[in-house]
Amino acid sequence: MASQSVLTPQAEDFPRWYQDVVAKAEMADNGPVRGTMVIRPYGYAIWERMQAAIDERIKLAGAQNAYFPLFIPQSYLSKEAEHVEGFSPELAVVTHAGGEELAEPIVVRPTSETVIGEFMAKWIQSYRDLPLLLNQWANVVRWELRPRLFLRSSEFLWQEGHTAHATYEDAAAYAIQIHTEVYNDFLETVLAMPTYLGIKPPSERFAGAINTMTCEGMMRDGKALQMATSHELGQNFARAFDIFYQNEDGQAALCHTTSWGASTRLVGGLIMAHGDDDGLVVPPRLAPIQVIVIAVRDEPVVNEACERIAASLKASGVRVQIDRGRGSFGRRLTDWEIKGVPLRIEVGPRDLAQGVATLVRRDNGDKLPVEVDAIAERAAAALEQMQSDMYADALSRRNDRTRDVESIAEAIEAAQDGFARLAWSLVEGAGEQALKAEGITVRCLMRADGSMPVTDTEEGLVCIVAKSY
Amino acid sequence: MASQSVLTPQAEDFPRWYQDVVAKAEMADNGPVRGTMVIRPYGYAIWERMQAAIDERIKLAGAQNAYFPLFIPQSYLSKEAEHVEGFSPELAVVTHAGGEELAEPIVVRPTSETVIGEFMAKWIQSYRDLPLLLNQWANVVRWELRPRLFLRSSEFLWQEGHTAHATYEDAAAYAIQIHTEVYNDFLETVLAMPTYLGIKPPSERFAGAINTMTCEGMMRDGKALQMATSHELGQNFARAFDIFYQNEDGQAALCHTTSWGASTRLVGGLIMAHGDDDGLVVPPRLAPIQVIVIAVRDEPVVNEACERIAASLKASGVRVQIDRGRGSFGRRLTDWEIKGVPLRIEVGPRDLAQGVATLVRRDNGDKLPVEVDAIAERAAAALEQMQSDMYADALSRRNDRTRDVESIAEAIEAAQDGFARLAWSLVEGAGEQALKAEGITVRCLMRADGSMPVTDTEEGLVCIVAKSY
Repeated sequence: MASQSVLTPQAEDFPRWYQDVVAKAEMADNGPVRGTMVIRPYGYAIWERMQAAIDERIKLAGAQNAYFPLFIPQSYLSKEAEHVEGFSPELAVVTHAGGEELAEPIVVRPTSETVIGEFMAKWIQSYRDLPLLLNQWANVVRWELRPRLFLRSSEFLWQEGHTAHATYEDAAAYAIQIHTEVYNDFLETVLAMPTYLGIKPPSERFAGAINTMTCEGMMRDGKALQMATSHELGQNFARAFDIFYQNEDGQAALCHTTSWGASTRLVGGLIMAHGDDDGLVVPPRLAPIQVIVIAVRDEPVVNEACERIAASLKASGVRVQIDRGRGSFGRRLTDWEIKGVPLRIEVGPRDLAQGVATLVRRDNGDKLPVEVDAIAERAAAALEQMQSDMYADALSRRNDRTRDVESIAEAIEAAQDGFARLAWSLVEGAGEQALKAEGITVRCLMRADGSMPVTDTEEGLVCIVAKSY
Repeated sequence: MASQSVLTPQAEDFPRWYQDVVAKAEMADNGPVRGTMVIRPYGYAIWERMQAAIDERIKLAGAQNAYFPLFIPQSYLSKEAEHVEGFSPELAVVTHAGGEELAEPIVVRPTSETVIGEFMAKWIQSYRDLPLLLNQWANVVRWELRPRLFLRSSEFLWQEGHTAHATYEDAAAYAIQIHTEVYNDFLETVLAMPTYLGIKPPSERFAGAINTMTCEGMMRDGKALQMATSHELGQNFARAFDIFYQNEDGQAALCHTTSWGASTRLVGGLIMAHGDDDGLVVPPRLAPIQVIVIAVRDEPVVNEACERIAASLKASGVRVQIDRGRGSFGRRLTDWEIKGVPLRIEVGPRDLAQGVATLVRRDNGDKLPVEVDAIAERAAAALEQMQSDMYADALSRRNDRTRDVESIAEAIEAAQDGFARLAWSLVEGAGEQALKAEGITVRCLMRADGSMPVTDTEEGLVCIVAKSY
């Protein structure tokens, strides 16, 4: 039962479809201060599950959580020249506090390399203190002129990892480990999202980095969304903040640092990579509600059966909720479809008389009558199947819409509704400008076999170019 | 093996002892902007476990997590007269953002009643939408002139719950439920901390509340620390933000709201309620590391035994870490004592030859030789015992230092190193002023039997007065 005219169809106006889903699925609202965002309980429950999955992986990679201040002295940002240039236009500045004008203005953190660099310098004495592997979950502020909920908001939530290492090799290896074992593994196995893993061209690097790795996902309108980035900062911040260590020979040496982050933008990616004209489609491993048990009518026998079914699902570890039979059945179906709950179980008096209920998958609409006694097992199997089907579907959509091309002109054409892949040598420099004039950017550089290069100067690299969010 | 001269003894200078513990246990550092705080990994791991325990209880009480913006238009605060008066002196104000001066200054949230009130008004239509039970984990900013790590910082982390109800009775009952089933249960069963549960006198209420409940803990210097508060806001914020609902008769009616919070100040309470001259003492249920397995010497046979012991503890669900035998044994013991790890297991070659290791409790120093094969079971039992002993010890310390008195003069004397309890009728008004002149405040009002009153106007109330943090 598809919802009718509740959401703008994707094909008609994708940005409006997105806005509609965010509003009708009760994911988020615009805050009162321009560009800020209220994350509503359903949206936050999804973010909490993203956090848990990413946090678990970060801890497995050996990093420890900590918390650094929201407020940074303005002078700190100026210590790294590229960094301050990159972030100045986006800063929010506190000039008054405690009823007085401040002697030095304070910046609300846009990211925390500077303040964390200051403390790394304090805490690191010798090579025995390395690597120092830190992460924080925090809010950051970057003033947005064209805000869009989850995708570009003046305040957003994220985790930012910051690490210091004795050698360039160790720093680079750790950044790659985070990028693949934390971000890409989360995206593939939890978010069911294939990505192009590569490095940014020099023009798109993080301000102050010597190399930026990215995971680029494809949205259902063929545009790209950068899902997470990991930066090798070389010795730039170590130099700016005096992050020295004493090596085994007793000599002072500069550290090599990294930083890496993923944000509430992931929620926007979830919506746009998997959603359809009926609303959100949440992969089962991520879903805060995996199964909604819906009473077709408000009758005691039906409600009791719903309770029994929900109890059996809960006992086998499924996250389940009951929708008792109040109000229109059709309206309730539509609401749960918009929220993208992976499975629904429709429980009606006629089916019950025959000992069955109907299991419906959100992604493909498959309906399956299932014996009530076997429902927990069947639901668990359907959730597993749906998780892998969603990844496979997203992968084939992406591959279908990634075209190999051989000129800038062809790339511009292909990027109207998908990704173009072509030799980086055809793009570098003038090609980047020509693409930019058409609203297209280089999303990442990869080796011809799809693996991640070490630097942008390797021979034979290809690049993915696309329009993007 | 007690640490010598690492920490200032409590009896010599309690505030310096506190500073020493925070620094040497690597809990936190002062941030670069006055009054801000860097929470280091060990301190943050403790806070994360507090969060998890509180969050679980909040969800059991039916509230849902959400997230509201850091930035609030200055005009919002003015909508509730007492609220703006209470918070104005502590506000941090953003006047510039995105490279321009703002038309209306923005306040960095000191608490979120105002912005959440605005959205409650939007989301609540009818009695069917009530109660609306929200919570958020967030940072807030209140400018501090005399900052102290964890206790008073210009930025702190907390959860703030905000709920709307159809009736006064429902709102009051929910605030009491949160105060007892979330806060006090957490404090007693996880933090091993007895509290006096009561209501604040009118002079100490939250700005804009009609009633404030508090949990007051006693620190080891006899001073009080307010561990958590829950507020009945009556219809004050509902009126200021137009939080109406349509009742069953189709009439518009004003909601009744509550708010309630607990913060990183809990970490300060943990340190001061349980710590001793050797450092922190963390209750087992809270401890991020419950058992440290310490190799007396760096020998293969010892290190292997440590691995085996740690594996058996981990298998039975104990949070365990190994300290391999590098560096001075005494120095390592001291470090783990300062960090307050509940149990240590000393593993040395001589004991191992006899199949035993030594189990040492942090709270009372009890040493117990235990057969290596039985160690997981014995450690689990010791952790359970220590949890209940710590509560019992804290309770008897608190009871010993709470004196029943019958005049303001006696109360002033008793409050020099403990709590005084006396009739509220002796204190109200002039008595409060006389106490305040001595740096003493009314911490809470209770009934004579120790239970929580509904209002401060009940007959026969007693009050707890003390110096406080």
